[in-house]
Order: sequence, then structure tokens, then C-alpha cells
Amino acid sequence: DCLSELTKGRCPVNFPVAVVLPAAGSGERTGLSTPKQFCKILGRPLISYTIHAFERVFWIDSIVVVVAKESHDLMTDIIQKYNHTKVKIVEGGSTRHRSIFNGLLAFSEQGFGPKLQKPKVVIIHDAVRPFLEEDFLLKITLAANKQGASGAVRPLVSTVVAATTGGYLDHSLERARYRASEMPQGFIYDIIYQAYQHCSEAEFKFGTECLELALQHCGTSAVLIEGPSSLWKVTHKQDLASAEAVIKESLSQSACIITGECTETQNLSTWMKNGLMAEGMWVDAIPNIEQGMTLSTNRNLIKLSVNSPKSVEIEEFMKMCEETKDVLYPFVILWVYLNVSGQASFSQENDEASAIMTLAEDAQKRNIFLYCVRLSYSKDSTECERTMNKLCQITVALIRDRSAAFSGQMLYA
Amino acid sequence: DCLSELTKGRCPVNFPVAVVLPAAGSGERTGLSTPKQFCKILGRPLISYTIHAFERVFWIDSIVVVVAKESHDLMTDIIQKYNHTKVKIVEGGSTRHRSIFNGLLAFSEQGFGPKLQKPKVVIIHDAVRPFLEEDFLLKITLAANKQGASGAVRPLVSTVVAATTGGYLDHSLERARYRASEMPQGFIYDIIYQAYQHCSEAEFKFGTECLELALQHCGTSAVLIEGPSSLWKVTHKQDLASAEAVIKESLSQSACIITGECTETQNLSTWMKNGLMAEGMWVDAIPNIEQGMTLSTNRNLIKLSVNSPKSVEIEEFMKMCEETKDVLYPFVILWVYLNVSGQASFSQENDEASAIMTLAEDAQKRNIFLYCVRLSYSKDSTECERTMNKLCQITVALIRDRSAAFSGQMLYA
Ligand SMILES: [Mg+2]
Ligand SMILES: [Mg+2]
Repeated sequence: DCLSELTKGRCPVNFPVAVVLPAAGSGERTGLSTPKQFCKILGRPLISYTIHAFERVFWIDSIVVVVAKESHDLMTDIIQKYNHTKVKIVEGGSTRHRSIFNGLLAFSEQGFGPKLQKPKVVIIHDAVRPFLEEDFLLKITLAANKQGASGAVRPLVSTVVAATTGGYLDHSLERARYRASEMPQGFIYDIIYQAYQHCSEAEFKFGTECLELALQHCGTSAVLIEGPSSLWKVTHKQDLASAEAVIKESLSQSACIITGECTETQNLSTWMKNGLMAEGMWVDAIPNIEQGMTLSTNRNLIKLSVNSPKSVEIEEFMKMCEETKDVLYPFVILWVYLNVSGQASFSQENDEASAIMTLAEDAQKRNIFLYCVRLSYSKDSTECERTMNKLCQITVALIRDRSAAFSGQMLYA
Repeated sequence: DCLSELTKGRCPVNFPVAVVLPAAGSGERTGLSTPKQFCKILGRPLISYTIHAFERVFWIDSIVVVVAKESHDLMTDIIQKYNHTKVKIVEGGSTRHRSIFNGLLAFSEQGFGPKLQKPKVVIIHDAVRPFLEEDFLLKITLAANKQGASGAVRPLVSTVVAATTGGYLDHSLERARYRASEMPQGFIYDIIYQAYQHCSEAEFKFGTECLELALQHCGTSAVLIEGPSSLWKVTHKQDLASAEAVIKESLSQSACIITGECTETQNLSTWMKNGLMAEGMWVDAIPNIEQGMTLSTNRNLIKLSVNSPKSVEIEEFMKMCEETKDVLYPFVILWVYLNVSGQASFSQENDEASAIMTLAEDAQKRNIFLYCVRLSYSKDSTECERTMNKLCQITVALIRDRSAAFSGQMLYA
């Protein structure tokens, strides 16, 4: 298939591709004061996830983000903070179609400001659909290049009905004949540009469908491609919770255990690895983090020790972790220690507990969530098993939820 | 309006009303092994929330739940566990329409088993749309009684397109003329029953719309009523996370602080109350829980003390709480104590920590989530404020998330 061709180095996209991302909407439907594209999920604005989904695709050259005038500074901050490199900001128009046309003008002699390289194919997408896979983008792009236009469709979730003017049922549509038109859509740039040039005032104002414009004004009938359900759009307030759940799941798929050198922690590591793998997490173990090492971006870290760590030790360890990772995405550091003596340890002293909380609060500003777990030690094997099960349950929850409220806490298993 | 008439005791529904809830689907679309109506949210199956939404409406007499044969025992258990009293189980058919018809037959001489009282109006709903308000049910019911049929509609989220047989865009529908047909729908029982009696094999198999059947076979044109966005349907896996978020929000709206009698805890109560109210929670405070008291079902409890509680004290307090509440819904008990001495307290001893965890594990089986927070005590007012802010942040998170993994934990603020 196309993706394996890509990995073999024969990329089928041998023409320039750009993206236009209209994000000038005010988002009345969420019932939130912030437009939904700027709502934060795990501290990061939704639009930044969407941009990232395009930016990581090497054959996409540039992304034009169209925002309302009042969001220009916010968007500039987001680009800087999340290190987006392919993005250009363009000012939105009075309607969604005006905004898209403004985006297209960024590649034209007729646009304002410095002109971007004109693409062969332009992808139009929604800022509030962050879950895009490269293979689907490839399908849309290749189909657009071949047929002039292409668009994602999905089966209808509800029956569609037509109402009489009095508000009564006139008729319902035969569901199998129709599809919901979703995003992304792809166009040969010259076709969609020409379609917008011929757009009437009424179309600019009331039209909703770019595919329809290409059909009406250029006679280009788009290929409709069945998209995955992950293309859904954040529309209502409760959809933000769905988006958060999807992102949390993707961030909690793997962990690396730093075992240390001693037998107790290496045994503990084996236990934990098996327990977490049984919960569906991908886990590996290394004895130490060393300078110059590179840890994968999405990997969470679990540090094991026999004794209760001093806050200075934790601080040092965190520094090391940060040097070996790209910390654009939030990740979890979990410090687990055996409590062999069974005695009160540092955590019981308010000063140390407070020092760790301060550390954790600082770390959070750098996208790191720090938690600790103290293990009770028992020679009784039933007790021991219960402790291990609890540890796994707590670990999965901490890594999945990455709750800011609990950062810096010392939990007990 | 209608609701205020209800409260004045003049209920406009002076005729029998029943509900048919088709729940025989296998739910392929979620990608989960459990059909979505039986997926658990906070430990409780989705369908039980939906049933409860109807059961609490006093003018609804009975609810017929139509389930697949293999789900019969599961459904019986749910009815027993969640104390549903208005529900009758009916076996599903080979299609959604056959299942609905089976449900309707429960009120007819022609059905199997003991016959339920025939309603004037029957409401048909989806088991996977749990967020129903009484006022909207009233609208649907009154409109159905007047016009013969009524149905909830919502604006289309996506443009609807028709495809050519080759998979190209044929045309897109003018969005303003159409609506998405949602649930609930209401019918005069005799009309929808007659419509199903005249239903063809093809309609039983491929039809999706009860409103269309009433139109085709009885000439009844349904009133279309704009419904709230809360009527959305749990369709895909990520929608379960949305539903959970909505339910968590509704369960974490209020808390009651049990202050005790001493000045320190009463001051702490005032602080907490202000802090939590600023976070949007409704909070009141009482000195003690007494026998014979009745606490509102959805209220969470925060117990304050100066000294660290012994596990036996916690156990006693929990018993008291359970006696004063209907614990159908999960609720949170949070024990907060001042740590005036600054010394190691019971929680530092593994035995007591372990006893509290055992208590919490048992409590969870009875729908109670138990957590503790130890406060650091400082004379420094900046430190003090920081502690109080942290306490509020932790409290809001514990009550909102009601995480099973953290139950029985002693947190630090
Ligand atoms: Mg469009
Ligand atoms: Mg129907």
C-alpha cells in the first residue's frame, strides 16, 4: 500500500501540498466562552494538536491557519510555545467561506503580504478535528490530485428529515443513499481557487460545502472517501471530554522503568512490568538513565528505589530525564520506593513533603507530572500480591489521568 | 409553563404514558465487546441511567426494555441492583423495528405473557441517550397526544451529500431545509401500533424511522420539536468518555461539610466553603451527622477533624453516612484533618494505612469513595494560603474524578 511505499522511500506525493485550516469561528455551540479550537486539553490548545497532525507529515509543506483578528496574538503564542514551524497566520473573513478563501489567497499574487509557494494540491480541514492519520491524508491528497477534488464522508448517525414550513414531518431521507460530509477535503489548488473567484455573495454567506462550490463553478465532481470514525469534530462541550480521553489514551500507552542496580528493585521491576503489560501498557526496563541517551517523546518514566528519595535526588533525576527527552507533550515521572524498614520516612516530615510538592509544581510548568508511591513491605505473600496489584492500579491511573491536583503526592500501596 | 403547572399540582398529563426502550443492539460501532447500552460508567451500566431518567418522572407508568435473549439475565440483575421498579423486560427481534414492535406488543392482547395497561401515549427512546430532562419529555408527550406523533430533531452537524453509484459527489443538501431526527419520539399508542401492523418485511428490515411509518401507514405527520444538545447518542467508543464526564459533573455539584464542634475545624470549614464555592461547587456545613437525618442523594461529604482519625472512627462515620443517604449513586467521603503537631501520625504506620485501604475497598463495593487529606499547619500566612488552595484543588479533583485507584489514600496539602 501507499504507506509501505513511503517507507521504501518512493513517496507517491511528488508535488507540493499545503493545508488551509479555518479557525476563525466563535464556537457558540459549545456553550463555552473560549472558541473550541483554543480550548485546552491537558494544557495544550486543541488547534495545536491539529496542526501537529499535519506538521509531522513530511510531504506537507505549509499550513495556513485562518484566525479572527482578535485571536492573532494568541495564535502567535501557540506557534511559538509548541514550536510549530510550517504555519502561517492569515486573518479570517466574515463567514467560513470568506475565511477559507483568505487562506487560499496566501498562495496567490492577489493575497496580502509575502506569498507562499503555490501548492498543486491544497487540503482544507477543521481546526477542531485533531485526530488525523497520515494514511488517510495520503488517500485524500492522491485522489484530489487525480480527480480534482476529494472529501471524507461517514455514514449518517441519525436519519435526516425534511420539515414542512409548519414544523411537521414532510419526509425522511433514505439513509443508505446519503453520507455525512466531513473533513479533510482535498483540491487541486487552481480548481478550488477558481471556484471561490466565481462564488456569489449568497454562497459566501450561506454555503457550507467546498465540494459543492467545485462542482458548481468548475464542474469537478469530488471523489467521496469513507473516513475513519476518528475524524469526528469537537462540536459540543462534552466532546472536549472525548478528545481528552483519546489524547490521554495515546499518551499512556508506554512506560520505561528505571530499575537501578540492586536485586530488590530489579525484582520489583519484573513484577511491575508484567502487571502493567497485563493492563495493556507497553513497558521496558533499563538500569539507569545516562547522559546522551534519547528517550522516546511519549514514554512515561517509572523510577524505582529501595529507600525513600530525598527531594534533591528527585530534582537531579528530573533534570536528567528532561535532557534525554523532547518534552513538548506532558509526561509522567513516577517514583516508586520500597519501604523495607516499615518506619516513618521523609514523607512524614512536612518539610520534605512540602519540598517535593514545590518541585512538582515547578515541573508541571515544564510539562512534567511528578508522583511518588511508597510500597508497604510484607513477608506474607497474599499481602505482597495485594500491594503489587494496588501499585499497578495506581500506576495506570496516575499515568492515564496525569492529574495536576495530585502532582507531588506520596501515595501508598 | 408546563413545569410550573406541574408543581402547582395540576399535571397536564392526565392520561397513561409508557416507554419502549429498544436495547437489543450489539453495538458494532463502538469497537467494544460489550454492547454500549451495557457499558459501565462509574460502575453502573449506561442503560440504568437512561431507565432512571424515565423512572423519576411520576406521570410515566411503565418502561418496557427490549433486550436480546442473551442479555436477559444481565438486564434482570441490573433491575434488581439499581432498584428499578417500573421496568418490564421483553425479548428483542431480528431488527430494531421488530424489537420496537415486540415492545409495543407488551401492551396488547396479542403479546406474550401478562399484558401491561395500554397507554394513551407511548414514548420510544434509545437506551444509549441517558441525558433526558422531564420538561422535554413533557413537550414530546403533550405534542404526541395532540397530533398523534412527535419527534426530537437537532440541526445537522455535517452537510449531507448524495453520492453517484461510482462514489462521486452527486449533490449536497441545503442544510437549512433538513434536520437530524433524534430520540425521544412520542406516539398515540393506537397509531404506532397500527403502523407496525401494516409494516412490510422490507420496512421491518431496512426502515429506520418510526415517524416515517406513522406517516406512511396512518397518515400521521409528526410534530418535529427542536431538542437540547444533551439528547446526543453514545455511538462511538470515545462517546463513553463524554457520557462519563457529564455524569461526573452532575455528581460533583454539591458537598456538605461536617465541621465538628471546635473552633479550628469551624474556621477551616469557612475557608473550604468559600474556596469550593469559588470553584462552582454548592457547599453547606453542619456540625454533625445525626441519626434520623436525611442527606440528599447526590451530596458528597467532607468530614473535618483536628487529629488524625483512627480507622475505627472512619468506619463509624461511614456507617452513619450510609444510614442517612440513599446510596444508589456513588458518592465521596473526604476526611480532612489538621496536622497541628507537625509530627508523624497514624497514617505513617503501615498497619493503619493498610486498615484504611481495606475500609475503602469495602466501601467502594457499596458505592462509596473514601479519601483522606492531611493538612500541613503553618503560622506563615503565605504557606497557609497555599495549603488551602491545594486543599481545594485536591478536593475538587477527588470529588469530580472519584477514582477507584486512589480510594483509601492519605493525600497531603
Ligand atoms: Mg466545507
Ligand atoms: Mg426510529
